[in-house]
Amino acid sequence: MSSKTCAFIEDFYQEAIIKEEFFQFLRFQSISTDPAYRTDVRACADWLKDYIETFDMDIDVWETDGHPILFAKDLSAGPDKPTLLLYNHYDVQPVDPLDEWVSHPFEPEVRDGEVFARGAVDNKGQCFYVLQALKALMARDGKLPVNIKWIIEGEEETGSSGLHKLLDEKKATLKADDLVVVDVGIEAADKPAVTLSVRGIITFDVEVHGSKGDLHSGSHGGIVYNPNRALAEILSSLYDNTGAVTVPGFYDGVETLSDEEKNAIAWDFDQDIYEETFGKALGGERAYSPLERNWLRPTLEINGMEGGYSGEGFKTVIPAKAKAKISCRLVPKQDPMKVSERIKKHIEFLCPASVDVSVTCHRGQGGAIRTTPNSKTVQAFRDAYTEVNGTPCSYILSGGSIPVAAELAKTAGSGIVLMGYCLPDDALHAPNEHFGLDRMKKGFLTIVRALEMLGGSSQ
Amino acid sequence: MSSKTCAFIEDFYQEAIIKEEFFQFLRFQSISTDPAYRTDVRACADWLKDYIETFDMDIDVWETDGHPILFAKDLSAGPDKPTLLLYNHYDVQPVDPLDEWVSHPFEPEVRDGEVFARGAVDNKGQCFYVLQALKALMARDGKLPVNIKWIIEGEEETGSSGLHKLLDEKKATLKADDLVVVDVGIEAADKPAVTLSVRGIITFDVEVHGSKGDLHSGSHGGIVYNPNRALAEILSSLYDNTGAVTVPGFYDGVETLSDEEKNAIAWDFDQDIYEETFGKALGGERAYSPLERNWLRPTLEINGMEGGYSGEGFKTVIPAKAKAKISCRLVPKQDPMKVSERIKKHIEFLCPASVDVSVTCHRGQGGAIRTTPNSKTVQAFRDAYTEVNGTPCSYILSGGSIPVAAELAKTAGSGIVLMGYCLPDDALHAPNEHFGLDRMKKGFLTIVRALEMLGGSSQ
Repeated sequence: MSSKTCAFIEDFYQEAIIKEEFFQFLRFQSISTDPAYRTDVRACADWLKDYIETFDMDIDVWETDGHPILFAKDLSAGPDKPTLLLYNHYDVQPVDPLDEWVSHPFEPEVRDGEVFARGAVDNKGQCFYVLQALKALMARDGKLPVNIKWIIEGEEETGSSGLHKLLDEKKATLKADDLVVVDVGIEAADKPAVTLSVRGIITFDVEVHGSKGDLHSGSHGGIVYNPNRALAEILSSLYDNTGAVTVPGFYDGVETLSDEEKNAIAWDFDQDIYEETFGKALGGERAYSPLERNWLRPTLEINGMEGGYSGEGFKTVIPAKAKAKISCRLVPKQDPMKVSERIKKHIEFLCPASVDVSVTCHRGQGGAIRTTPNSKTVQAFRDAYTEVNGTPCSYILSGGSIPVAAELAKTAGSGIVLMGYCLPDDALHAPNEHFGLDRMKKGFLTIVRALEMLGGSSQ
Repeated sequence: MSSKTCAFIEDFYQEAIIKEEFFQFLRFQSISTDPAYRTDVRACADWLKDYIETFDMDIDVWETDGHPILFAKDLSAGPDKPTLLLYNHYDVQPVDPLDEWVSHPFEPEVRDGEVFARGAVDNKGQCFYVLQALKALMARDGKLPVNIKWIIEGEEETGSSGLHKLLDEKKATLKADDLVVVDVGIEAADKPAVTLSVRGIITFDVEVHGSKGDLHSGSHGGIVYNPNRALAEILSSLYDNTGAVTVPGFYDGVETLSDEEKNAIAWDFDQDIYEETFGKALGGERAYSPLERNWLRPTLEINGMEGGYSGEGFKTVIPAKAKAKISCRLVPKQDPMKVSERIKKHIEFLCPASVDVSVTCHRGQGGAIRTTPNSKTVQAFRDAYTEVNGTPCSYILSGGSIPVAAELAKTAGSGIVLMGYCLPDDALHAPNEHFGLDRMKKGFLTIVRALEMLGGSSQ
């Protein structure tokens, strides 16, 4: 790729070997949200720890109430070099609906240069190229060009509650100049970009309770209030007819961008391509463009809904309860705690008197992040992207979330850089998640070059 | 019980033996709606056929595309005696949520005199006392007091499509003076009653389709229209704020009762007892009383709702689709076909342009039934109830449905009697369905005495 990458680094990257080891990583069913996979998550952490130990980084395991956190470091660059805190995670999302996967989510398969597996991109793929980059630099120099602290946690997909709880205790250990979150992406394979923001996230369980047990819809239909109906009424009332969220105060504090900020960003959205790839881009607030809706506006989504019988055939039941899972993506200046409280209150207000509702806010809420393009580290990553891709790197925002990142940066006393090579159609969190082997190598080179630049070496 | 029941009949009813045989019947997992249980449904039919053959009734098996229909007869009473067409079914509802059952749904258990099992009352229990009554009368007289044709079908819980299709072909065979549907109940154990009406039923699958696949709610939240939201909006818009169904023309043809009809019926509803047993009686149309809402008004219920991830933990997904199952109970003068068409059209009208909706009407729709208290057969059953229970039998209506009954009576050229000993808290279609052994015996005696009365013998 770039002429600036030395021969050692180019030769180091043996795709066949890397693929084989990457597949081992992908085979662990490290689904953090489901207690049934607890052992698999642990096995994955153990495997990763052993792997990192092979190239002589110091590594600790931080136990939590949930899944373990790996903390690796190499500080031999010395005090005159910057210290980066890298962030990845080894846990993955659940895989249902399983029948929509072409190949098994935990039996990785390469089709057209793309590795298909749960976690292929989010985040095992992105974690694995960081790992290869550090391994290559260690192999070449016996140390890294900058001081590196590296967190790889196992609860990102469930809100990072273990890491949250450890932040105070590990404050000194985590101290860094910049936090580099390698868990985001770019808008197209030929459009390298550093991400300047991610949204925050809060998640809820909503449960509507009606009768004492399930009832026959003939014997009781018309008498009792069906929890399915109440839930549909509550959920639909969370939006007005412009697509805005009706929760009072939901948009409090939400800011627009300054012209300068706007101009620094690549507002690249091709509605035709989007609709061909994913479907109609007609959700959210009508007053905003699709990218504004996803990057700059908070949203509320119903991620799950269930009540009564949905199996084969029919069951004429009025269920005793109905439930939903909802989440909000938040933007800067929105306080997760405050918004959570408002949503809970509003849902309680919307609930018909004939049934009861309970709203449970999950642990591991996280605020939004917005970073500045003026940071030296952001610029090093921008230059590394440009060099590796042979095309100018721009700045973008992201609609996704890294729940723990805001708090983690605050604890580390650091700035933030968000980087990665995920593409919008990689199907992360969905069936047939995939990641390109070509992007894996670009990720590897981008990390190597950014660290070299920050370490003051152009090789 | 009654002094009019002869000693032979009293002696015939050996509870221990009957219970053992009844339990065999209950152990078949004859869930007609789920293809996974096809073999079990067939085994249940075979067992029942063999049992009926032991007491010398003629029995045929009518094959259908779905589950077989049993047709037994004994016409030896002769042409001067009336002919009754009895109706039962041996199929049952699904059992989920399984974890709410105290004992296994297909391992019957007696607690406090009640048999707990799926089908205990609906309809294996009521079928089994009819069977015992016919068996006892055959054992005593070698024939039955009236001509009996007896249909026991295996698709009642799925809309009786096999029986519907056979009606034309079997018209002559089914001819009868009255159809006796033994699949309803009474309002309280000490309030014997003949049921003068059941509601009709139509059922639908509603499916909302959004994007081409499941999407990450961070990367796409705010851009696409979430099918869960669209489904909630559609379903909640099916009701207005008085609880009335908004589908245009839904109430067309719905009649009130004449004073005479009203006075013939026992309007016995204790809201306190109802709410203590089941929960708040605050659903349906506010303009009507609970019993009017259940007996005289058509209703629309959401029986199932599902979209996205509802499992343990959380998954930040925007699902590609969301689905619901809805059903309507209809009253006399509502045409099932016409109402179905209107519901389909209205749901299509309500669907936001940003997603697509499909509405599938299930087979086996059925109109409502209302019968007259002036029928000789209704009166015989009323007298049998009174005698067996030692307390005057009244008339009630029912909110439930026997989908095929209206068409079956039309085919048979017959009147209709609706009888049974189900109680409102028997949990039919729900976990922990149960039926009292005392009611089983009363059912047995009521059938025996009604047939004797209609046969002109007071024994």
